[in-house]
Amino acid sequence: MASPLDTTPAADGFRMPAEWEPHAGCWMAWPERPDNWRRGAEPAQEAYAAVAGAIAAAEPVTTAVSDGQFERARAALPDSVRVVELSTDDAWLRDTGPTFVVDGAGARRGVDWRFNAWGGLEGGLYFPWDRDERVAAKVLEVEGTPRYLAPLVLEGGSIHVDGEGTVLTTEQCLLNPNRNPELDRAAIEAALHAHLGTEKVIWLGDGVLEDETDGHIDNLACFARPGVVLLTWVEDPDDPQHAISRDALERLEAATDARGRSLEVIKLPAPGPLTATAEEAAGVEPVEGSRPRRAGDRLAGSYVNFYIANSRVVYPLLDPARDEEAGAIIAGAFPDREVIGVSAREILLGGGNIHCITQQVPAPRR
Amino acid sequence: MASPLDTTPAADGFRMPAEWEPHAGCWMAWPERPDNWRRGAEPAQEAYAAVAGAIAAAEPVTTAVSDGQFERARAALPDSVRVVELSTDDAWLRDTGPTFVVDGAGARRGVDWRFNAWGGLEGGLYFPWDRDERVAAKVLEVEGTPRYLAPLVLEGGSIHVDGEGTVLTTEQCLLNPNRNPELDRAAIEAALHAHLGTEKVIWLGDGVLEDETDGHIDNLACFARPGVVLLTWVEDPDDPQHAISRDALERLEAATDARGRSLEVIKLPAPGPLTATAEEAAGVEPVEGSRPRRAGDRLAGSYVNFYIANSRVVYPLLDPARDEEAGAIIAGAFPDREVIGVSAREILLGGGNIHCITQQVPAPRR
Repeated sequence: MASPLDTTPAADGFRMPAEWEPHAGCWMAWPERPDNWRRGAEPAQEAYAAVAGAIAAAEPVTTAVSDGQFERARAALPDSVRVVELSTDDAWLRDTGPTFVVDGAGARRGVDWRFNAWGGLEGGLYFPWDRDERVAAKVLEVEGTPRYLAPLVLEGGSIHVDGEGTVLTTEQCLLNPNRNPELDRAAIEAALHAHLGTEKVIWLGDGVLEDETDGHIDNLACFARPGVVLLTWVEDPDDPQHAISRDALERLEAATDARGRSLEVIKLPAPGPLTATAEEAAGVEPVEGSRPRRAGDRLAGSYVNFYIANSRVVYPLLDPARDEEAGAIIAGAFPDREVIGVSAREILLGGGNIHCITQQVPAPRR
Repeated sequence: MASPLDTTPAADGFRMPAEWEPHAGCWMAWPERPDNWRRGAEPAQEAYAAVAGAIAAAEPVTTAVSDGQFERARAALPDSVRVVELSTDDAWLRDTGPTFVVDGAGARRGVDWRFNAWGGLEGGLYFPWDRDERVAAKVLEVEGTPRYLAPLVLEGGSIHVDGEGTVLTTEQCLLNPNRNPELDRAAIEAALHAHLGTEKVIWLGDGVLEDETDGHIDNLACFARPGVVLLTWVEDPDDPQHAISRDALERLEAATDARGRSLEVIKLPAPGPLTATAEEAAGVEPVEGSRPRRAGDRLAGSYVNFYIANSRVVYPLLDPARDEEAGAIIAGAFPDREVIGVSAREILLGGGNIHCITQQVPAPRR
């Protein structure tokens, strides 16, 4: 299973299922780098363990961890979580892990995208990133899953699919010259369709303000089901996020999906605005070449950044003034699922949230 | 699955099956330490890959490898071999891996023995050995197999079972004060029975001459089936191995197994005597605290150190003058299996052989 397949998922009849389709499990990775996670990553590890526990109540969870942190992670995580040694440069399995695809005959395969730490030497978040580059192949080895090697720099957090032919993404990320400068919009669309089994791309513009991933879709908007999109929303017209969300809303309202449907858009109020405190920033150990964390930095908080597990949605608690309302809106969008909030500010301080740190393994069906 | 079970295999109705019972697969680990393997471990890696390939033709093989060697191992091993990141101090999965046990209801569990690098600070082969100590638990995590934590320092190569209640071992190793000085013979027998589901121990005396494991049984003798033992044999009375093998023969001829059977003993002529050449010894990078490799050192070569895979036996080729005869004797002992020889001098130079670098995962049956 070492050598990658020399075809594409679409050519072989595979597609990326929507996140709400049945899962065999979920992969995560353990945070540890002290130049991104304050106080030696201890508070972030607590938050990760809580997320893992919330998901493990609904489906099997595997956590990747370095040898050096193995015993620590094993002790901190619930017994039901599988812990495997698998070194990373940071803990964003959504972006470094494989994108799983399935066919109609009960088979599962994985797409191993190229990875350059969210922009490589032109705006990327750290160097080196060679361990992250190996993550997807290693996950697929553990799972015994055949691998496609995609000729595209892409992070899983930059795409969402409805499972019925539509992919949702942002121009800020996928057309960014620090990802695939040799490919134009049409070539990127073709590569997405070949590897996701999709037929239509809906392009939004910018991602959430100050999102260091160059505007990943999974922090801005997501499908709740085919034809329905949840969009992070800021009502205050003086907040620069307002214009970003409004632009996204207009594009979504003008769009049709792969099946020709117009989209219903549900606004999900954003937390905050949130900023890093002096104490939070001071707990990070700065390193040349890694993105600094400064007091007063605006945090790209969004309730859209949740994970859809088999029987529940796990969403981030970020702002006591808004958490409850956000949970109620998510519950309305997922009437068949229990909605569980997990305290997630420590994950946000590291640059992402619950969707960013998870990667579903779909259960193929015949 | 993190926390160990607080019972014992025997109490729960589990037993270690004989190696010839059906396997779900086999685990190995990748050699790399340059203070044990000459020329940066390259020749040993070639030999390991050949062994993995020979076994993979009969059953699924997983190879544990460090992050640093991951791509190298992946490229060197056949596509059919699963390669997972799993750090070790050296490549002896037989001794560092779990001992798998099964029950009659189709369940499989694993025994995680204590490990002290074949003798700890009193005669052990290297320091530290903390990565090796974590291997069994990590293997069981990957496999999703519940774990018993045995209160006994023991390496898998120091025991053989017939699957019908008998365990074969050596006094030199299991009664060695550098393993479990607080336990006497009776206490060790009780611990073996509790963790292997056995009822009777057959004690041989010393292991093979110059065997640096303190005389592991898996280099001296093994069961071919219940009631039949293969014993490494040197005819020359002036060779010190002769007296060791003769003592083992006499003990075996005097013994009965757990079912009350007398044992048939098949002599398997040893290769050589073999010694390390100056070139071979010079290729090892000496390190304080690791066992030195010197020109002229007698090598503990033995054809008994083979692996019984599902449909074949993979045995070491060590001496052109004896390899063929050894293969014919092994074939006679395993009439239903193909017998495959693999060039294994490079493994022997590191201190063991094919059985030492493999660990079967039994397929539980109802």
